[in-house]
Amino acid sequence: MGGPARLTLVLGGARSGKTAFAEGLVAGSGLAPVYVATGEAHDDEMAARIARHRSDRGPAWRTVEAPLDLAGTLRCEAEAGRFLLVDCLTLWVTNLMMAGRDVEAECGALGAALEAGLAGPVLLVSNEVGLGIVPDNAMARAFRDHAGRLHQTIAALAGTVYFVAAGLPLKMKG
Amino acid sequence: MGGPARLTLVLGGARSGKTAFAEGLVAGSGLAPVYVATGEAHDDEMAARIARHRSDRGPAWRTVEAPLDLAGTLRCEAEAGRFLLVDCLTLWVTNLMMAGRDVEAECGALGAALEAGLAGPVLLVSNEVGLGIVPDNAMARAFRDHAGRLHQTIAALAGTVYFVAAGLPLKMKG
Amino acid sequence: MGGPARLTLVLGGARSGKTAFAEGLVAGSGLAPVYVATGEAHDDEMAARIARHRSDRGPAWRTVEAPLDLAGTLRCEAEAGRFLLVDCLTLWVTNLMMAGRDVEAECGALGAALEAGLAGPVLLVSNEVGLGIVPDNAMARAFRDHAGRLHQTIAALAGTVYFVAAGLPLKMKG
Repeated sequence: MGGPARLTLVLGGARSGKTAFAEGLVAGSGLAPVYVATGEAHDDEMAARIARHRSDRGPAWRTVEAPLDLAGTLRCEAEAGRFLLVDCLTLWVTNLMMAGRDVEAECGALGAALEAGLAGPVLLVSNEVGLGIVPDNAMARAFRDHAGRLHQTIAALAGTVYFVAAGLPLKMKG
Repeated sequence: MGGPARLTLVLGGARSGKTAFAEGLVAGSGLAPVYVATGEAHDDEMAARIARHRSDRGPAWRTVEAPLDLAGTLRCEAEAGRFLLVDCLTLWVTNLMMAGRDVEAECGALGAALEAGLAGPVLLVSNEVGLGIVPDNAMARAFRDHAGRLHQTIAALAGTVYFVAAGLPLKMKG
Repeated sequence: MGGPARLTLVLGGARSGKTAFAEGLVAGSGLAPVYVATGEAHDDEMAARIARHRSDRGPAWRTVEAPLDLAGTLRCEAEAGRFLLVDCLTLWVTNLMMAGRDVEAECGALGAALEAGLAGPVLLVSNEVGLGIVPDNAMARAFRDHAGRLHQTIAALAGTVYFVAAGLPLKMKG
């Protein structure tokens, strides 16, 4: 019940098919799927895109928004019989930075919540962003550092880790 | 004869050795190798580089240029006894964008041609470009999205997919 | 004694946990660990960071600085009973470029030294930087090309190559 073994991390690049792969894992579990969205609609185009994705997932999925308080949302929502899909960690890190939050502290709190164990399984999707040239601007470098450290923390706790490229999963752990 | 099982995708980063690895696969097949070049010589330096690569491949290789009409070229050139190497998809996407073409429609037409089946085997080389920070400029973001979607399409059709890093292939499928 | 089979390459992205993984391999070998640092302290922040890392590694580690003459340092320092960890190659390439050196010649000399065989095992850590969008500026493109070619050279000589993401190693060779 709860515990790190119930955690899955799906890493991948932009347009790598990581979310579709993750949705397939959750939908195939037989549990009630919950989509934990970290993205927010800041304009009409974004709102339309979010609505389209929600419609694509179909009526079996419930959607919960967690732009900032991800650890609290996971603690509230997790329960036996439900499978939470968090999409995605990098967007959450971006939101924390934009809101002026202490990103390392928030990432530490998320790690602590996951390590303490939740009442049901959670899959976290995130963008790998550290395999290009060092970015020119300091904000992008800080973002890249936060994301990389968070991925290490989550991967250490997760029972299963996938790296997705071109829609194909590569199992890194589990 | 024809069909998705005869398709190979080789993904890799810049200077990852992906083309040399792909050339080895094609040259080792015993079939007549055909190099389908999507790159064009826009200046003398590029022309010299293309001529050097052609000379490096040696006289066994025939070279065909397909900067824009890749689906048509593959349909024309594919035949039993020949092995086509397309180098590379990301350059083709760049050419389509520069020429103002409808990239999604062209990628769809390429996918349809590959799905319908060609008369001989084809290996496609492409750059993975989605593992760095989100680019500042909209054109680069659109390019990255087009490339990622195309890789998913081709990987789903391909019988074999490799990811190459530091000259070493990692089999993702097949 | 010496020879390519004693070489290990650890590739990974920014904040991928590649250095911690590499330190674990070297520390677990039972040999005397030597940290060959290619980074230099150009300011107080950097100096503090270097001092912190040195303290984190603990007293078992000896540290040697090799910002430019990496091949010479490896020839001097390598011996049976010692395990050298070079951290990292991409920083060394940056130093060479900043110093106006002939990078291809220096990389060739390093490759020759490693191919000739050293008197003890060496592990080299490097950043994979070729999986993002083509950089706008020519210096970054040249850096990316140098790094990619060097990784291919070292990987061909190495007995073992790992790719590290989110702190998890994926064995590419060996």
